[in-house]
Amino acid sequence: MEKLTAPKLMLGSPNVYADILHVTGFKAPDPVIVLQTRTACFLMVSRMEAGRARATNPALTVMTPEELKMPVSQRRRLSAWAVALLKHAGVKRADVPSAFPLGVARRLEGAGIRLRVVEGAFVPERAVKRADEIEHLRTAQRATVEAMGVARDVIRRAHIGRGGELRLGGAPLTAERVRRAINLALLERDCIGGEPIVACGAQAVDPHAVGHGPLRAGEPIVIDIFPQHVETGYWGDLTRTVVKGRPSPTVIRLYRAVLAAQARGLALVRAGRRCSAIHRAVSLVLERHGFASRTIEGVSEGFTHGTGHGVGLEIHEAPSLSRADGVLRAGHVVTVEPGLYYRDQGGMRIEDTVVVTRTGFEYLATCPKTLVIR
Amino acid sequence: MEKLTAPKLMLGSPNVYADILHVTGFKAPDPVIVLQTRTACFLMVSRMEAGRARATNPALTVMTPEELKMPVSQRRRLSAWAVALLKHAGVKRADVPSAFPLGVARRLEGAGIRLRVVEGAFVPERAVKRADEIEHLRTAQRATVEAMGVARDVIRRAHIGRGGELRLGGAPLTAERVRRAINLALLERDCIGGEPIVACGAQAVDPHAVGHGPLRAGEPIVIDIFPQHVETGYWGDLTRTVVKGRPSPTVIRLYRAVLAAQARGLALVRAGRRCSAIHRAVSLVLERHGFASRTIEGVSEGFTHGTGHGVGLEIHEAPSLSRADGVLRAGHVVTVEPGLYYRDQGGMRIEDTVVVTRTGFEYLATCPKTLVIR
Repeated sequence: MEKLTAPKLMLGSPNVYADILHVTGFKAPDPVIVLQTRTACFLMVSRMEAGRARATNPALTVMTPEELKMPVSQRRRLSAWAVALLKHAGVKRADVPSAFPLGVARRLEGAGIRLRVVEGAFVPERAVKRADEIEHLRTAQRATVEAMGVARDVIRRAHIGRGGELRLGGAPLTAERVRRAINLALLERDCIGGEPIVACGAQAVDPHAVGHGPLRAGEPIVIDIFPQHVETGYWGDLTRTVVKGRPSPTVIRLYRAVLAAQARGLALVRAGRRCSAIHRAVSLVLERHGFASRTIEGVSEGFTHGTGHGVGLEIHEAPSLSRADGVLRAGHVVTVEPGLYYRDQGGMRIEDTVVVTRTGFEYLATCPKTLVIR
Repeated sequence: MEKLTAPKLMLGSPNVYADILHVTGFKAPDPVIVLQTRTACFLMVSRMEAGRARATNPALTVMTPEELKMPVSQRRRLSAWAVALLKHAGVKRADVPSAFPLGVARRLEGAGIRLRVVEGAFVPERAVKRADEIEHLRTAQRATVEAMGVARDVIRRAHIGRGGELRLGGAPLTAERVRRAINLALLERDCIGGEPIVACGAQAVDPHAVGHGPLRAGEPIVIDIFPQHVETGYWGDLTRTVVKGRPSPTVIRLYRAVLAAQARGLALVRAGRRCSAIHRAVSLVLERHGFASRTIEGVSEGFTHGTGHGVGLEIHEAPSLSRADGVLRAGHVVTVEPGLYYRDQGGMRIEDTVVVTRTGFEYLATCPKTLVIR
């Protein structure tokens, strides 16, 4: 009879694979191997990393190729590490994540080890955040809100040139300048901004386009800031859409629809709610405001993405607020971010990151939702 | 008879898997599928990304789940994407990288597709850089050198307190303050610094420890800066070790040994040279200076890492200047970074990143190698 829980095997760089960082608390750029049995959590690292690994988390059983007496010729092969570690631990059968590297899997199977692929979350307990994790997320989100304030302030200080372009300090105010101001504000708060989105007018129609060049008055500017805290590894996520000067009636209609859809989504957030029900309700609000979704010549318009996603040691993690299955639990941290995208009208998105509670939600950090910047 | 070249299949986020970014030129946070056949390069993305993907690289054949008429219930499964794409392209057999996700592999095999794992580099042409790539690397390395200048300057402006601690502006000069100055300098040059190492005294004994707290006079401070350029994705890599005030005779001996070892390593760099021969020669210089490598109670001391590594769209990529096999080729970009680490004497490392040429090497950017900062 198959036992229900086999040892769990993971392999990769803790700085890239959040599951490994979550389980071990050990940060490193190079690949490591983690084996969780009923009685121990093994972490296999290079000799160079062993001391730091032991100091980081005394609960781990840290092993190196040398300690497992691997032949020198095998010590550079991660697949050989895995074979040696499982042999040492007496493990003949292990659960691995769907992303487990095929090359290593074939070597392990060649050594007589049976692997079972676990589809979906491999460390599902990651989705429900502990109190210390929520504090880390709050810190990251506060930095994100403050960086949004800096971006708004830069746009507020700009004036409108004769052709409608924004100008500041004698030069055009570009997406790149606002992005740099955001990144500086984040860095001062120990967060790495990557490429925050500052997308004006037609650029914002693609929700992932980062935006470039001069910003213009009267057009919606989508600002999406999603930094990672350097020390803790947790992320923030926040989007606002602003207009410098006077928005057109169409932009105001888009704004009202998205704001109402976000309010509806937030109102539905609480432990026990089906994620897909939230997404459906949000979509319905947008439709009732007259904004349908459609695909023309292979290009989608309208509400082209899900309502939200979990945030933690990854910027996109479980749960998904979309058509997918799933139920919210207290301690989930999710974004609620409806958006509308039309080739002829531009993009509009409003996003907050909130903690799910038994009775509703709490913002990690609050940020005004004002459209117009005078 | 087996054909020699099967279509190549890759799967993952271009922002994480440099092979995919290199082949497609398309940046995105979400996973995509790439299928290179003899006649076409397919890129499968979500509907939301299709427009941007087509605009980025017209040579790609961009596909979406909708265009492949996948049933709605399958459109969220990446493994189903892969099955649909291979079926569309008439591919029954594909080469995949060793890191290919096992879960997807099993689904493909279940659909009758044969996968061959390619060990080692999957896009080996990435190691030899084109002229435009070398320009991108040069830009990143220049920013890195300038950030090192900023770090040196901060330490130069500090004074030595009564207890030997460095002070600046009425407060202790800490690793964190220097790191922030480095990161600001990098950001102003469109590079993301991550966690540059500023490790003083005993902290530097672990080559990957980032360093924290007050810096002290007379002790070696290892500064290792390795940023990624936000737009191009290429990395820089540079290490210097400095001492504020008067170094001990031991520190001077360490410095001379590492400097001589690096000079020897650089002198051996040229197309056609065995990588392992360079590593051996560098190790020998350190030993001849009286610095042996040894392992005591599972902790290594001496020269505990390889001589260098390739740099490109990944901070660590082929070729490896270590005991591993490999021969340098013109257009390789590699670090040369011998180091010494002793628990009782601290750490010392000097690293430059260079382009391999037919006759030797060229620095991507030059940076002084002075130990002492007065």
